[in-house]
Amino acid sequence: MKIIYKPIGIIHSPFDKLEDMPIQPSSESSSPGVVEVYPEFTPGLKDLEGFSHVYLLYHLHKTGVVKLKVTPFLDEQSRGLFATRAPSRPNPIGLSLVKMVRIETNLIHVDRVDVLDGTPLIDLKPYIPAFEEIEDARIGWLENTRDRIHSRNSDARFKG
Amino acid sequence: MKIIYKPIGIIHSPFDKLEDMPIQPSSESSSPGVVEVYPEFTPGLKDLEGFSHVYLLYHLHKTGVVKLKVTPFLDEQSRGLFATRAPSRPNPIGLSLVKMVRIETNLIHVDRVDVLDGTPLIDLKPYIPAFEEIEDARIGWLENTRDRIHSRNSDARFKG
Repeated sequence: MKIIYKPIGIIHSPFDKLEDMPIQPSSESSSPGVVEVYPEFTPGLKDLEGFSHVYLLYHLHKTGVVKLKVTPFLDEQSRGLFATRAPSRPNPIGLSLVKMVRIETNLIHVDRVDVLDGTPLIDLKPYIPAFEEIEDARIGWLENTRDRIHSRNSDARFKG
Repeated sequence: MKIIYKPIGIIHSPFDKLEDMPIQPSSESSSPGVVEVYPEFTPGLKDLEGFSHVYLLYHLHKTGVVKLKVTPFLDEQSRGLFATRAPSRPNPIGLSLVKMVRIETNLIHVDRVDVLDGTPLIDLKPYIPAFEEIEDARIGWLENTRDRIHSRNSDARFKG
């Protein structure tokens, strides 16, 4: 079974190479960005400005081979891929929850992004606390990384 | 540009038709379920048991035509598709944040699901509060739906 998707837009950011990028929007080194939705989909953006945060789903188009065991940027040990947000996934979909600054027609200005310039956008979903607000989450191996979770940047390890 | 993905597993739930399903895992009518990851991807599940919550990304395989304006289950007015979680998306990807109960080899038992039995799984990502915990989110048109957000079920409006 094949699942075929197509880009609905493109994400613009200051990051033009995989090395030394922020690893999440909350990283200290992340930067404002613009999510351009292709004009044919503009009607679907109605009412989105009422929300403060949106999930970006995007295709990690510069990722290399699939690795089911990875050493994440935040750790020195090998971890199961699905216990990480590493890009070397069987289906290389990225997920970032970002804050919207303003929407101009088909351009969504967001306060922080962590993606490569030119990344294909595949979906947008509003953040809904009634569905996604979690209290007392456990975070496994990441427990030991709290001191550097917002300062660590990427390197070339997952390059295609 | 075409993006081609393939299922990495299948989601088992008690819901065998689109009508009268819960619309999110937090719905009162949602039910325990099992996320079966295909055996070839089992090594990628290592370390996931340390986390309490996981995002399921799945292909909404029973969705019909794309609608950029939809009347959501929770409203009586037409809204922009990307300001809703409705399934009639250009790329029909579903996103649910669920709590894990236990993992047996390649079977992840989750406490509540809101998806159709047999839904193809395309990715799993651990929930990481440092990346996704939001305070004071605004929720636009959903502000007026707080009283019924956990009790409303689906109907056949987005059927394929």
